[in-house]
Amino acid sequence: MSNIHVNITDALGTVSQKAIEAMASEVRESVATLVEGTGAGNDFLGWVRLPENTPDSLVDDINATAARLRGECEVVVVVGIGGSYLGAKAVLEALGNPFDVYNKDARPQIVFAGHNIGEDYLHDLQQYLDGKQFGIVVISKSGTTTEPAIAFRLLKAQLEAAVGRDTAARRIVAITDAKRGALRTLATEEGYTTYVIDDNVGGRFSVLSPVGLLPIAIAGHDIKALLDGARERQKAILSGADKSAEVYATTRNALYRAGKKIEILVNYNPRLHYFAEWWKQLYGESEGKDHKGIFPAAVDFSTDLHSMGQWIQDGERSIFETVISVSKVDHEVRIPSDEANLDGLNFLAGKRVDEVNKMAELGTRLAHIDGGVPNILITIDALTERTLGSLIYFFEAACGISGYMLGVNPFNQPGVEAYKRNMFALLAKPGYEEETKAIRERIG
Amino acid sequence: MSNIHVNITDALGTVSQKAIEAMASEVRESVATLVEGTGAGNDFLGWVRLPENTPDSLVDDINATAARLRGECEVVVVVGIGGSYLGAKAVLEALGNPFDVYNKDARPQIVFAGHNIGEDYLHDLQQYLDGKQFGIVVISKSGTTTEPAIAFRLLKAQLEAAVGRDTAARRIVAITDAKRGALRTLATEEGYTTYVIDDNVGGRFSVLSPVGLLPIAIAGHDIKALLDGARERQKAILSGADKSAEVYATTRNALYRAGKKIEILVNYNPRLHYFAEWWKQLYGESEGKDHKGIFPAAVDFSTDLHSMGQWIQDGERSIFETVISVSKVDHEVRIPSDEANLDGLNFLAGKRVDEVNKMAELGTRLAHIDGGVPNILITIDALTERTLGSLIYFFEAACGISGYMLGVNPFNQPGVEAYKRNMFALLAKPGYEEETKAIRERIG
Repeated sequence: MSNIHVNITDALGTVSQKAIEAMASEVRESVATLVEGTGAGNDFLGWVRLPENTPDSLVDDINATAARLRGECEVVVVVGIGGSYLGAKAVLEALGNPFDVYNKDARPQIVFAGHNIGEDYLHDLQQYLDGKQFGIVVISKSGTTTEPAIAFRLLKAQLEAAVGRDTAARRIVAITDAKRGALRTLATEEGYTTYVIDDNVGGRFSVLSPVGLLPIAIAGHDIKALLDGARERQKAILSGADKSAEVYATTRNALYRAGKKIEILVNYNPRLHYFAEWWKQLYGESEGKDHKGIFPAAVDFSTDLHSMGQWIQDGERSIFETVISVSKVDHEVRIPSDEANLDGLNFLAGKRVDEVNKMAELGTRLAHIDGGVPNILITIDALTERTLGSLIYFFEAACGISGYMLGVNPFNQPGVEAYKRNMFALLAKPGYEEETKAIRERIG
Repeated sequence: MSNIHVNITDALGTVSQKAIEAMASEVRESVATLVEGTGAGNDFLGWVRLPENTPDSLVDDINATAARLRGECEVVVVVGIGGSYLGAKAVLEALGNPFDVYNKDARPQIVFAGHNIGEDYLHDLQQYLDGKQFGIVVISKSGTTTEPAIAFRLLKAQLEAAVGRDTAARRIVAITDAKRGALRTLATEEGYTTYVIDDNVGGRFSVLSPVGLLPIAIAGHDIKALLDGARERQKAILSGADKSAEVYATTRNALYRAGKKIEILVNYNPRLHYFAEWWKQLYGESEGKDHKGIFPAAVDFSTDLHSMGQWIQDGERSIFETVISVSKVDHEVRIPSDEANLDGLNFLAGKRVDEVNKMAELGTRLAHIDGGVPNILITIDALTERTLGSLIYFFEAACGISGYMLGVNPFNQPGVEAYKRNMFALLAKPGYEEETKAIRERIG
């Protein structure tokens, strides 16, 4: 099984081992609530056994669709927002080569849309797609979420104008509700290939469903290995053999209760930038409610040691760090020797770049601990499909446990509706007549 | 003059107008300290009059170098970390087309290096550069900062091997100290074109110096207009005609004193993502010291309404938002009508996408204010060189004022050294023998 090691030694200056142990019954109860499905939000627990419940036949089907799109398309646009794009983007970046965007032979390019309301963004995207063979993966449970619905309207019209309605229908894949909703209706009418978002899997827990699997497969990654990693982790956590998620959930709650209000997820590998964005949604949206919750933030080190490093070292002592450490990199680059040695780097000559990175990591951890920043260290072997599947499930499980320990429903997001209601009122959406009147009076 | 409007009306539920007025003498004192150069860190105030002090001849010279590199290079690698890359990247993204990376005719592509210690990143970069005509802009005051020094060693060797030492010397531009340091010495020996980082301009205040100007000019943007915008803002602020920076500095300090510990910089334009990263360094590194300082965070809306939106709406009431609102976009995209109207979007048919975006913005501001999140609204006309120059100077000036109001030296960054010392000790750098012994004993 791929390894995930959680080390809380360097958090124990702020919260004692005893305090952590005193939370043992609390965490056991939260785990039981989650596993037995007896808590708030228990109609959204489909993700708990999703890896196990995903049949090989679905994986094969997704891989076949991905292969078809790879064959037909130079570009695939993934249309979705929030949980409908962050998981896929996180895995694509973690496994990808950041310079493939410049490589015209790398195909298909995968780009995202419907995750903003940027008029210039959509203009530039449509201009880029003009004259190219492209496909669309549209991801929306309802089909009416504003951002993806606008983008999909524009892109569908563009694709149909370019290749005709029949070919367009073959190049569009919809991931949506099994039966209901605008996108399901349209997909049935047009004959799109479709995949189902289960009712009991919320957006931020959906990366191991077709929502994440199809874009990841289109990019050529091994989604079977991703699921295998998740399955192993699911089995280990649900059987109680693996306590890592409990340890992480307990420690972060203990730190929060001790006044550490901000958790900074730290990586030392640029490929993990979007993994942290995925994590921010997972934890922020699950826990930020009822006027409580750790504020999730993220940095890429050593890059951000030269921006947020000063604050972390010497600012308010209201933070803790959770480091994702990746033991092995994929490629070897050694630092060359230089006769003149003007930069004084010859003491590193012959060393691998990652050896320096690992010492930056250790040196930074020690400096921040000395500066009063508690530290949780999560170590994984490498950035592979299998380790990522495992890590995703680990963070999901820990999130459910942690939310119950915090005393919230980790699986709803009532606060996301407020801006939508105002927006619809301001845009005079049919059905919002009273709200429109009220908000217009308010803004004068 | 390009417009910057700061509206604090929606912060006044948390701090009263009276409380703000009571800080008038304090802010006046901070402004005087900054303008007269009588405060802590006053040997780093070169940025205050940098726009005015930048002669046209320097701008012309930078533009000539940029044109030469554009002519000779398919790719230019900008090597730098922290303030040596964030400002340029912020402006490039704010003015650029995000899909140009896929366009093989867009040249030169500008990529960054030396801002991480990623072995895979450097491997993938070197592979990408293989066989391409590339140049290097290396930015480092000393020439010995670990991250850029490693990247530059590798890339310089690659370039010299590919095109020979003479051609390489023509394709490398060094931005460094006027007289001292490893990079200055090397540049003199090799005959590189060079530009100077003034002693009194710190990294995070350097975007309007050659550090930012050269990469921005290489991308084809109008650096004269950027400086003009900054000059106008400098003149207005230093003459006292423009109080916007004082208002922003006062309000954020008032909110901080009222327990709002996290400032979230919000944009509704995806092009501003890296502008927020630049801002995070500017404020985080200037204020995060002596165990105080607002924690700077950032979100891209509406994207992150579907990740951090829940937390902001309903989490701990320890935050405030500062919104950068851009009045006009560059391109026009209208939402098409659709006969079937399955997605129910026909009420938006014919509207511009940005009209929807503006209602998302207003609707979100109202929702978050109702949720107990004080709001500072900063409005600019459009994303142009001129407005960006103006906005950069505004934020720099406000940062200096704000730091003095907080009671710190806004122009040092002592906390950034701690990790470096540990790293050098762990790597057994010559001169660190004692530290090496100590840290090895510590980690066992």
